[in-house]
Amino acid sequence: MTTHVSPHAARRTPASRTRRPGAVRTVGIALYGLGTVGSGVVEALEARRPELLRRFGLDLRLHHVVVRDPSLPRGVAVDPALVTTDRHAPLEDPAVDLVVEVMGGLDHAGDVVRAALRTGRGVVTANKALIATAGDELERLARAGGGRLRYEAAVGGAIPILHALRGALVANRIDRVRGIVNGTTNYILTRMAEDRLDLGAALADAQAKGFAEADPTADVSGLDAAQKLVILARHAFGRWPVLDRATVEGIGAVTPEAIEDAERRGRRIKLIAEAVRDGNDEPTLWVAPIELDRDEPLAAVQGVMNAIQVTGDFAGPLLFGGPGAGGRPTASAVVADIVELARSRRGR
Amino acid sequence: MTTHVSPHAARRTPASRTRRPGAVRTVGIALYGLGTVGSGVVEALEARRPELLRRFGLDLRLHHVVVRDPSLPRGVAVDPALVTTDRHAPLEDPAVDLVVEVMGGLDHAGDVVRAALRTGRGVVTANKALIATAGDELERLARAGGGRLRYEAAVGGAIPILHALRGALVANRIDRVRGIVNGTTNYILTRMAEDRLDLGAALADAQAKGFAEADPTADVSGLDAAQKLVILARHAFGRWPVLDRATVEGIGAVTPEAIEDAERRGRRIKLIAEAVRDGNDEPTLWVAPIELDRDEPLAAVQGVMNAIQVTGDFAGPLLFGGPGAGGRPTASAVVADIVELARSRRGR
Repeated sequence: MTTHVSPHAARRTPASRTRRPGAVRTVGIALYGLGTVGSGVVEALEARRPELLRRFGLDLRLHHVVVRDPSLPRGVAVDPALVTTDRHAPLEDPAVDLVVEVMGGLDHAGDVVRAALRTGRGVVTANKALIATAGDELERLARAGGGRLRYEAAVGGAIPILHALRGALVANRIDRVRGIVNGTTNYILTRMAEDRLDLGAALADAQAKGFAEADPTADVSGLDAAQKLVILARHAFGRWPVLDRATVEGIGAVTPEAIEDAERRGRRIKLIAEAVRDGNDEPTLWVAPIELDRDEPLAAVQGVMNAIQVTGDFAGPLLFGGPGAGGRPTASAVVADIVELARSRRGR
Repeated sequence: MTTHVSPHAARRTPASRTRRPGAVRTVGIALYGLGTVGSGVVEALEARRPELLRRFGLDLRLHHVVVRDPSLPRGVAVDPALVTTDRHAPLEDPAVDLVVEVMGGLDHAGDVVRAALRTGRGVVTANKALIATAGDELERLARAGGGRLRYEAAVGGAIPILHALRGALVANRIDRVRGIVNGTTNYILTRMAEDRLDLGAALADAQAKGFAEADPTADVSGLDAAQKLVILARHAFGRWPVLDRATVEGIGAVTPEAIEDAERRGRRIKLIAEAVRDGNDEPTLWVAPIELDRDEPLAAVQGVMNAIQVTGDFAGPLLFGGPGAGGRPTASAVVADIVELARSRRGR
C-alpha cells in the first residue's frame, strides 16, 4: 500500500528564504585585530570563499583591518590599503555590515563593540573577558539597536558549544554544564602528572610552547575559566549570572604529590568549571581543581584540549571536545558566527 | 582613549528578522509514528511550549498523529481527536506546515516524506535507512518543491553532529569523520570486555535491556553504522556517497579471546565507522571492529553511548559524544529540527 496525495492538495509557494539562483549578497566586514586569531580569520575567509559563494550566495568582503602597529610582521597577507590604525573610521563606513573584534582587552574592544551595536551592525567577538563582564549590557544594546552579537569563540575555542546550546539543544531544559575550559591549566596539570614536574616547571614549559602568556595569572587563578563558565551558564540557563558570585579556586595550590597520590588511586586532578541550576534561584557556579575517576570522560581530556559536558532533560549527557585555543581553532568559531550573521541579515 | 562614533554615523534600520513583540507564528505539525520516539517528541513539544513561545514566538501545534493501531497503549497522552490511521488526510490539510516522520521503515515512510516534500512542506525525519538510501533524491525533491528536509536524529541520537557540520563548522574543510555510531554493538562489546561474555550472551543481555531489537542483524552486521556513515559523509564532504561502495564488517567475528588479548596490550576493540576524503575522488567509507589505544577518546566511549570525531582544517580535531538512541534523546534531535524549520518558514 502506498500513500497517494491528490494533485489538488494545497501546494505551498516556495518559502521566501529560497535564494534566487545566482543572487549574491555582499557583506562588508571591518576586522579589529590581526594577531594569531585575526590572521586565522583572514585565512579562513579566503579559504572558504568559493564554498560560501556557492552554498549561500555570500560574498564576504574585508573592508578594513584595524591594527595598533601596521609595521609588525603578520602571519597572513592583507592588502595594505585596508590596514588602518583608526578605530573610528570603519564604524562610519556605510559599507561595513559586520564588525569582528579579535583584538582583546576591555576598553578599546568594548568601545568598538558598543559603537557597532548602537549603529545596528552585527558584531562577532572572541573576547571572553568583555562578554563575561558586560554581556548582559551588550545584548541589550544589540536588541535596542537592531544589531546582533555573537561570541562562540569566547568559550572552548573551536568547540561549537554556544551554537549547540542556542539551537541544537532547544528541546532541552539544561540543569548542569561542566567542563575543562582552560587549556593552559589543563596542559600544566597534564605535564605535572606525566612528567612529574612541579607547577613552576610545567608553567615555564607551557610558556615556552606558547600555551601560556607571559602573565599567566588569569589562567592559573581560575579567572579565565570562571569567565567562560559565566558565558556557558547564560546560554544553558537563559540568564546572565554574576561573575562575582562564582566560587573560584585555581591550580596554584596543586602539588606534584597530590597528583601522584590521586594517580595511585586511579584518579586525575583536573581544573573543572561547573554551573548547576537548582530550582529557580541563581545558579551555583564554581571553578576548582578536583579529582575525577579515570573513567570519566573529562579525565581523558589531556594537554591543551577543552571539553564541555551538558546534560539535557531529553538529550541526556552530551560531551563536546576540541582545541580550546589557538589562532586557527578560534578563527573557525569566529567565521561560523560571521557566516551566521551574514546569512541572517536582511534589509539595509 | 576611547572610540567615539559621531551621532551622524549611518544608523541601520533594524533588520527585518526582528520579531515584532508579541507576534506569534503558528506552525501546524502532522506527526507520523507514536512509538518511543514519537511519544518523546510529543512530550518535548509540550514541555518546551512556554520557552518556544517566549524566545521565538513559535506556537507549534500538533494537528494529526498518524498511527498504525490506535488501540495500543502509548507512553504519552494525546488528544484522541488528533489520532488517525489515515496517512493521506494530513497531507491534504492546509493547516499542516511540517511533517514529522518517526514511524521508521522504508515504504510508507518514503511515500509520506516524498508527498510532503512535493507539496512544499518541511519534513523532519529520524529515518536513517531512508535517508542513507534516498537522501540525494529527497533533497532534490525538497529543493524542487520549495520544502526543506532535516534528519539530525538519523545519526548519533541526541548528538547535534549534523547541525555542527552544516553550520558551526562552516569555516572548515573536513577530510575525516570517524566514530562509534551504533550503540547496540558498542554495548555488546563493552559487556564482552567487562564481563567476559561471548557475543551471544552479550546480545541477549542487550535485547533484554531494550538496547537491541529482536532481529539484530542490521546492528551486528555493521549496516546500521554504514547508513549513518553515509549521512555523516554527505554533510562533512558536501556530496552523497554511495552506501554500496562502503566496506562493511560487523562484530560477528569478534571473540572474547580477541577482546581479552587486546585489553592485555592496553587496547580496546570498538566498531568504528570512518569516512576519509583523499583528493577530489569519491571518499573512502569503512565500518569495522578495530583496536584502539585506550588513551584515544573513542576508546573511552562505553555502553550505548555514541561519539563522533571530526577534523577540520581550522578547528582541528573535535569530539561530539552522547546517547546514540532512545526515545527522549532522539526526540531532542527531532524537536531541534522542527524548531529550526518552523523558525525559518516565511510566507505561505
